[in-house]
Amino acid sequence: MSKQIEISPGVAPAIILVEPQLAENIGMTARAMANFGLSELRLVNPKNGWPKKGVREAASGATHVLDAARIFDSVPEAIADLHYVLATTARERGQMKRVLAPEAAMTEVARREGQGVGVMFGRERVGLTNDEVSLADAIVTFPVSADFPSLNLAQGVLLMGYEWRRATGRAALPFTGELLSPPATRQAMLSLFASLEEGLAAAGFYPPEKREIIARNMRDMLHRMAMTEQDVRTFRGALRALSRHAAAPSND
Amino acid sequence: MSKQIEISPGVAPAIILVEPQLAENIGMTARAMANFGLSELRLVNPKNGWPKKGVREAASGATHVLDAARIFDSVPEAIADLHYVLATTARERGQMKRVLAPEAAMTEVARREGQGVGVMFGRERVGLTNDEVSLADAIVTFPVSADFPSLNLAQGVLLMGYEWRRATGRAALPFTGELLSPPATRQAMLSLFASLEEGLAAAGFYPPEKREIIARNMRDMLHRMAMTEQDVRTFRGALRALSRHAAAPSND
Repeated sequence: MSKQIEISPGVAPAIILVEPQLAENIGMTARAMANFGLSELRLVNPKNGWPKKGVREAASGATHVLDAARIFDSVPEAIADLHYVLATTARERGQMKRVLAPEAAMTEVARREGQGVGVMFGRERVGLTNDEVSLADAIVTFPVSADFPSLNLAQGVLLMGYEWRRATGRAALPFTGELLSPPATRQAMLSLFASLEEGLAAAGFYPPEKREIIARNMRDMLHRMAMTEQDVRTFRGALRALSRHAAAPSND
Repeated sequence: MSKQIEISPGVAPAIILVEPQLAENIGMTARAMANFGLSELRLVNPKNGWPKKGVREAASGATHVLDAARIFDSVPEAIADLHYVLATTARERGQMKRVLAPEAAMTEVARREGQGVGVMFGRERVGLTNDEVSLADAIVTFPVSADFPSLNLAQGVLLMGYEWRRATGRAALPFTGELLSPPATRQAMLSLFASLEEGLAAAGFYPPEKREIIARNMRDMLHRMAMTEQDVRTFRGALRALSRHAAAPSND
């Protein structure tokens, strides 16, 4: 199902893949972009042609990104109309260049809202050339484990999209915890403490010299629950049922 | 190549996949975990058996995670020894439950360092059941675009690993910008301004009434460069070469 997603030019960063090879990576890149509201994909000289067999399947529904993808012959052409370009790279390049973490990079991008921004990703095996890196304003690298630094292309794209969303205040959660009932008043809590403690005392629960300590610890347990009015009603109901049942064991 | 990675129990969260189906997703999950220093994978009742054909290839070298994976028959068994469990879900579940963004969730996890923590991911198509969600301490959901909310399993794992690393102070970049030369002193900068401005004046660059304004703007350009000592030397050298060349055009 093809979706029409409207993103104003210059709002979200363009994702630029330089000589990408695997259909799976490009498709998953499109999906990762769509997940975080990016839609502008630029492909520089895709290896072995374009479009690629299997890329639409790998996009898992994000085919609108693929359909709108623009193809360029070189990096200079792909970045010409942009105002700020980041180059992702795993290895130090011996260039005097600012190196940013994804979060910091997207803070920079957020400051440039309204400008054309691009994030370049290199070839699956060898990444970007030093020359291509030098065409970018700054380097982005990912805080990966030194034991296993090789990050899949689409995974890198996902992280940049995620951090863009966070940096530009778009990272609202799809839903938040429903407060199905308001918090219990302190009166309701104190009343519950009393009922609970009376019930436990009647049941012979407290060792004689430990009643105060145990009661206070149980009050803390109930405080930690952050009980709602409904929670208190449920808890009281359970207490009553247990007490009634204990009072009339022949009702089993 | 199999790596031996030492992570102390209770240090990094366990990733728990509930009835995962696709070898590709499990393999890519292992890779995503390795990228961010997670190594404990728990599989609950993998669909169509374990191990799966193709999973090692999809792990792209992170086979140590697969080899150490533990298989469980049910969620209760998989989480029994843990102290704090998060359930990832894309949809609201009608439960009174705290819903956390990945960053907030990993802040909670960071507070529990030394405790056993698990992050549960559900089946590719239907996610976790409401019952399974109720066994977790809290829900995590991702700040995806409402237009395209379906996040690939391994991508969700990657985001959790990334945020864990950030929350626990482990997100150092593999390299930072090399300061190949110290910043230029103000004397070097002022001297450069003077040379540049004298050279441009001699070349008749400035319109008469605009020299001050243009000169000040160019000083700002040079300030924005944040020039190092080496930058100044390079720039001076370029200026001299241009001036010499201009002085002796017959040398072309």
